[in-house]
Amino acid sequence: MAKIQHISPLAPEKFPELPVIRGVEFAAVEAGVKYQGRKDVMLARLASGTALAGVFTKSSTRAAPVLDCQSKIGLDSDDGAAIIVNAGNANAFTGKNGTDATYAVTSAVADCLDLPESRVFSSSTGVIGEPLQHSRITSKLLELKENLSDAAIQDAADGIRTTDTFAKGAGIEISLDGQIVRIAGIAKGSGMIAPDMATMLVYIFTDARVDRDVLQSMLSELTETTFNSITVDSDTSTSDTLLLAATGASEVEVGAESAAFRDALHGVMLDLAHQVVRDGEGATKFLEIEVTGAASQEDAKTHALAIANSPLVKTAVAGEDPNWGRVVMAIGKSGAPADRDRLAIRFGDILVAENGWVSPDYHEDDGASYMQNQDLKISIDLGLGKSQSTVWTCDLTHGYITINADYRS
Amino acid sequence: MAKIQHISPLAPEKFPELPVIRGVEFAAVEAGVKYQGRKDVMLARLASGTALAGVFTKSSTRAAPVLDCQSKIGLDSDDGAAIIVNAGNANAFTGKNGTDATYAVTSAVADCLDLPESRVFSSSTGVIGEPLQHSRITSKLLELKENLSDAAIQDAADGIRTTDTFAKGAGIEISLDGQIVRIAGIAKGSGMIAPDMATMLVYIFTDARVDRDVLQSMLSELTETTFNSITVDSDTSTSDTLLLAATGASEVEVGAESAAFRDALHGVMLDLAHQVVRDGEGATKFLEIEVTGAASQEDAKTHALAIANSPLVKTAVAGEDPNWGRVVMAIGKSGAPADRDRLAIRFGDILVAENGWVSPDYHEDDGASYMQNQDLKISIDLGLGKSQSTVWTCDLTHGYITINADYRS
Repeated sequence: MAKIQHISPLAPEKFPELPVIRGVEFAAVEAGVKYQGRKDVMLARLASGTALAGVFTKSSTRAAPVLDCQSKIGLDSDDGAAIIVNAGNANAFTGKNGTDATYAVTSAVADCLDLPESRVFSSSTGVIGEPLQHSRITSKLLELKENLSDAAIQDAADGIRTTDTFAKGAGIEISLDGQIVRIAGIAKGSGMIAPDMATMLVYIFTDARVDRDVLQSMLSELTETTFNSITVDSDTSTSDTLLLAATGASEVEVGAESAAFRDALHGVMLDLAHQVVRDGEGATKFLEIEVTGAASQEDAKTHALAIANSPLVKTAVAGEDPNWGRVVMAIGKSGAPADRDRLAIRFGDILVAENGWVSPDYHEDDGASYMQNQDLKISIDLGLGKSQSTVWTCDLTHGYITINADYRS
Repeated sequence: MAKIQHISPLAPEKFPELPVIRGVEFAAVEAGVKYQGRKDVMLARLASGTALAGVFTKSSTRAAPVLDCQSKIGLDSDDGAAIIVNAGNANAFTGKNGTDATYAVTSAVADCLDLPESRVFSSSTGVIGEPLQHSRITSKLLELKENLSDAAIQDAADGIRTTDTFAKGAGIEISLDGQIVRIAGIAKGSGMIAPDMATMLVYIFTDARVDRDVLQSMLSELTETTFNSITVDSDTSTSDTLLLAATGASEVEVGAESAAFRDALHGVMLDLAHQVVRDGEGATKFLEIEVTGAASQEDAKTHALAIANSPLVKTAVAGEDPNWGRVVMAIGKSGAPADRDRLAIRFGDILVAENGWVSPDYHEDDGASYMQNQDLKISIDLGLGKSQSTVWTCDLTHGYITINADYRS
């Protein structure tokens, strides 16, 4: 098994103070699903009337719990709900056994909390292809239920880690017409445990009252510019899951038109997405790629992701090399339209290339000096239109190879 | 500048004995374009009546010499022709200066060899964004002309290397209805020089007489299953160029229907393509990915390339880890159709997974032992149809990071 890394050099100083979300309680326990001596199962109980929305991996080989969540997420219900998550075993590529194991967990949670089984959502993350020892989870349900507390969100963030080097949380309290609404979320991702993918799991909670359809469309839209705009290594997990629960316990109604709520939610999602990148395997640099001047937003994102996923760009960043030639290469290969002679490339505020060539004012020393920063920005203006896209990634280092080339057993 | 690597552990024992192609002469010289103390410019002169075909990078930021070749390759002519190639400077992203530099070289070659300028094809490989000192090339043309020899193909292969760790050549002699036809080719690629891409340049020659349209369609078709079926790091050069010249000097006519010639050409192309992979940056393993049972050939190739380009699969191979879970992940993310429960995965002859789960007969020790081989094969049957695709790649190692994260200046 790969060893737990040291804490990422890009990690925040500490887990943030998060607001308490009325209508949600958390608990986490040591269930020994795979790991010993740490919490590895998290339960969240959601009050009656909670609306749920979700976004899931597009993988065609997605895991049993993902398929189960997808079948339930669109159902209307006034019942309470629950989210149960285990680390250590992904219950992925486990055939019919996987479906049975998921049902064993969700139906046991439903019995324990007196909920319909259709209101219990589960995720599993960890080893692929090994049967999930579901009784290790279900035998801990009473203990989880007894420990439920609205103050235990950090425990929950800890309980869903695999080899994440830090627990990830973000939250905000906003005032809507004088009434307080709170949003808080937790995430895991990018700390790897062999032989798995950097599975990303995200759970966000708010005490606002939001219609389920509105909640889903807001989540889907904001995912595009947050979690779907980050990449560590271009690989996609079979288990990626993002759930958003609105308990309504604040009794503050939020509609599709509420820009303040949308902005607050976007802020929490972006904060968590950035934390996932900051825990990228072996990461030593946090990199923002901004593409402007595109004919369409889709083109802009295609270019931005081509740059962010290019091994040659990512190794150059690791080497603190202001290698704009590799940025030109990545734009060229992306498949989206680009005109070599209209490109402008900036590293931070430094104009590096324009009009199809290196800028006459550019000095390599300036670029090299800029690349020594821990947080970097590369901007490309295509000069073709008015659309833009921003994505975030990390560098590709010896640390990535060490983590992922270690033999798993 | 990145240091020249040691010779790849996957390199062939030596440069092969290649047949002499009647109607082609080669020369290479030290021009000091960038490197010192080695040959860095190659000239090939082609007899009157030579038909030429070409395939080029699809990059939208391709280099000036590529654009120039593309504008000439479709022209009919009975004149002789020439190919001039320099290493050390890619003449890419050099604006109008790049176009002028290309013309300075091609027109000087045309004068020197008494050819129309439209029959001179050039390539440049090396540093991006620096002006090409074309006079260093043109001042050597007389020397090149004096040294032209039909036996100097290995010199030519040496002269186009950047940091390739070995010179690449392949050839064959076949008998068509009792008459001898010869094919020989040289290539460079995947040995990197910072800050460049693993530019691939390939030149193949035959003394068969082939109609230009037939030659082009044969080349385009065979490129799909050879050079377009290899990948080192998913990055695409701004300079990739493949030229095929048929001199006709054997006076053996070859038509579109000649399976023997097509097979021979395919063999030479595949051999050169494999050599490029075997010189992949930091490569320690040669990996064949075969996808069968696809609904279409395109689907099969999409899956095969998703696996071949996955950093998690490539690091697992580097770590000699039979990590079939990552293969499942890569299939899932490829975007092409797959049914988790119909997949069969083999490492060599070992059945690893089937029916949506690990095979009951699979023992991890067998997989681990297989992965210690230097040449590896991973086969996936999708169980959906009858189409197939095979691609080749190498592993992703600390060597790749070291080569590409080195600071370039």
